[in-house]
Amino acid sequence: MKKRIAIVGGGLVGSLLAIYLVKRGYVVNVFERRHDPRKTDLYAGRSINLALSTRGLKSLEEVGLAAKIRQEAIPMHGRMMHNIKGELSFLPYGKEGQFINSISRASLNVMLINEAENLGAQYTFNHRCTHVDLDKTTLTFQDEDHHITQKQFHQIVGADGAFSAVRGAMQFTDRFDFSQDYIDHGYKELTIPAGHYGSFQLEKNALHIWPRESFMMIALPNPDGSFTCTLFFPFEGKKSFDALKDLSNVEKFFQDQFPDAVKLMPDLLKDFQENPTSSLVTMQCYPWCKNNTLLIGDAAHAIVPFYGQGMNAGFEDCRILNKLLNETHDDWSAAAAKFQTQRKPNADAIAKLALDNFVEMRDLVGDPEFLLRKKIESHLHTLFPTQWIPLYSMVTFNENIAYADAYAIGQKQKKIMDEVMRDPNITTTWQSLPFQQIVDQLNL
Amino acid sequence: MKKRIAIVGGGLVGSLLAIYLVKRGYVVNVFERRHDPRKTDLYAGRSINLALSTRGLKSLEEVGLAAKIRQEAIPMHGRMMHNIKGELSFLPYGKEGQFINSISRASLNVMLINEAENLGAQYTFNHRCTHVDLDKTTLTFQDEDHHITQKQFHQIVGADGAFSAVRGAMQFTDRFDFSQDYIDHGYKELTIPAGHYGSFQLEKNALHIWPRESFMMIALPNPDGSFTCTLFFPFEGKKSFDALKDLSNVEKFFQDQFPDAVKLMPDLLKDFQENPTSSLVTMQCYPWCKNNTLLIGDAAHAIVPFYGQGMNAGFEDCRILNKLLNETHDDWSAAAAKFQTQRKPNADAIAKLALDNFVEMRDLVGDPEFLLRKKIESHLHTLFPTQWIPLYSMVTFNENIAYADAYAIGQKQKKIMDEVMRDPNITTTWQSLPFQQIVDQLNL
Repeated sequence: MKKRIAIVGGGLVGSLLAIYLVKRGYVVNVFERRHDPRKTDLYAGRSINLALSTRGLKSLEEVGLAAKIRQEAIPMHGRMMHNIKGELSFLPYGKEGQFINSISRASLNVMLINEAENLGAQYTFNHRCTHVDLDKTTLTFQDEDHHITQKQFHQIVGADGAFSAVRGAMQFTDRFDFSQDYIDHGYKELTIPAGHYGSFQLEKNALHIWPRESFMMIALPNPDGSFTCTLFFPFEGKKSFDALKDLSNVEKFFQDQFPDAVKLMPDLLKDFQENPTSSLVTMQCYPWCKNNTLLIGDAAHAIVPFYGQGMNAGFEDCRILNKLLNETHDDWSAAAAKFQTQRKPNADAIAKLALDNFVEMRDLVGDPEFLLRKKIESHLHTLFPTQWIPLYSMVTFNENIAYADAYAIGQKQKKIMDEVMRDPNITTTWQSLPFQQIVDQLNL
Repeated sequence: MKKRIAIVGGGLVGSLLAIYLVKRGYVVNVFERRHDPRKTDLYAGRSINLALSTRGLKSLEEVGLAAKIRQEAIPMHGRMMHNIKGELSFLPYGKEGQFINSISRASLNVMLINEAENLGAQYTFNHRCTHVDLDKTTLTFQDEDHHITQKQFHQIVGADGAFSAVRGAMQFTDRFDFSQDYIDHGYKELTIPAGHYGSFQLEKNALHIWPRESFMMIALPNPDGSFTCTLFFPFEGKKSFDALKDLSNVEKFFQDQFPDAVKLMPDLLKDFQENPTSSLVTMQCYPWCKNNTLLIGDAAHAIVPFYGQGMNAGFEDCRILNKLLNETHDDWSAAAAKFQTQRKPNADAIAKLALDNFVEMRDLVGDPEFLLRKKIESHLHTLFPTQWIPLYSMVTFNENIAYADAYAIGQKQKKIMDEVMRDPNITTTWQSLPFQQIVDQLNL
């Protein structure tokens, strides 16, 4: 008899995992709390986009979807910084030819669901998981009409996101570590519409940042010529969502802070008023498996969005789990145990990196010393391509370096660069630095 | 109209708070999930005892109960260490006349409930809180017969412990930080019965420790001549509860590790088999108040037991809250806001100290260098009684130093002592140390 697997959550990670598992020959049932995104506009007109990079693409390649998805994506080769005068400067993400990809969450989700269904996965929408029996591997669901159903499986995978119901059940078992940590900033989505004939009103192939030290706005391109902007802003304080409750202050604030953007935002006040202010949380837990139930993706490790790695980490989870199922000949209990010990340090590392990167994006990218540091690191990388890989590149462009290793190497590199930057003449003399010696210090 | 206050949880902290609040003139209702401890033996024959120290006593003094409670308590003047050969050494807790108090949880709880009821607090037992409406300040309870009742109050206080239902309701509100962290050790309670005619078979006025590096056993005296022992032991590993699943290994293990104790434990195997193995958790959260609902004691900050401060911190919470109600003329919203900003850093500090103290108790107290360090610190304290107070004394005997301050001063002292201890001749020359200079470094 074929093993019957339930995946709770038909979002990006749940659907990619469904594809992996039907390909392995399992009977796969996916249960999703929300409507079928192919039948309704899930995001109520809002166009959330994500940054797909090497780790995510590697998994999509394994299941044969990378080429198709690349067609829907817009390459972003670097960060375009907008200063308060509206002046631009560009910081490449990596080497020539390295880029991350702006992709719509909705269209990516639909592609994955279609592929999973075509391969034989069974989707059930509008089903909210209300109970998980971890001893009997049983799920209870409530549908739109409040009908209750209960189903038993051989294995359950919770891919139901940051506020996972499956994790909720685990949380009541003894010795389950768990934390949820909110940051002081919230976010709100805004829009820069397309120009005439679908033209892009800002550089198309970049991730735009308006870094303002304690807060920032970013913008990612959409295929229709528009940009989705996100304001990351403190909830409370002098400059905060609280202080902008009076709409009359909003326009002045944007005029002062983002003068070049505000000209391109005709619906600013409407967007600001109608779009929600959302919070940002890091969720960590352990263990990730209990009997025949396993957590994956955001359900196991939800992070803040500032490294663009949430989805990529979740897609990497799917690839690693599939690899471990190969290695264990589909012994789920062994694979799940290995999965959690292997992935947990990496999930913790990317959680820290994502928090750190918020400071980098909103503050440091506006700092000339920081930009010089990046320049020196990039030069080191050119001279010693395998010995000195900048942290961002390890995380974003190199799926062979685990997040935890990237974090550790990044710490070493930072110490060395701190030393290098203490040279009082660094701005004028950096090209004559003893580069070989600098790299030797790494001692990798 | 008098303000109606609901306290969820009629344990130690909930009952002390009830006393404070009826004295302020509130109508106080206490709801307790368990049976009335005056009518049933709540602890099923187990005799849990606690270490009551200055912070706890200060609050009990304010409500006029300290003298009565001292009569039930057994002073413990220091730690009595038992090495693997059964040899004893004694480390005083503080100066002459300073001690902590072994007290039975059950009898302390009964005293507090009686006092609260006498003063007019209304207790309702066998009522489990199943829902908290934070907007309407409404509580829902389920009794033994599964009857559901709902009641509205002006103010709710959650004093319902580490697994607080009130905090559970807060956890579903946006931007609520929460963590639960289990340590790798569990604990099991065992007994050394009284000797002939209720005599104590070990030194009565001490807290006994069998430190064994990776684990330990402790024993606290009871008024009836018995000792309650607690084995703190890893769940998994070579020496662990897992490895002692076979009862035949238990006796040999105790013979090897605690030869002097095992002679006094005739019911060891029965106790070991019948008493549960329990886990140890640190719970942290923030904020502690939402609308008219406030968390206090373990519900806000549950810690591991190794500093003997869980109850003391909870009793201190009650005293501080009462003080803030004085200062704000019973403006609960203002008092609760001040309470959480003032108490949160202290709760976090004692949580860390409690974790650190486990290492000290199970490992360091067996180390001659550590004991010398303690001796030097104690000497410094004698020479400079207000400038150098050992960390343990600040935490345990000085309610005027907040936990967070004690932690910070302790860190400074540790740095200085690390330096002092690096002197290669320290064991022979410590009495000629430049003590004034050492204290000057503190720079308080």
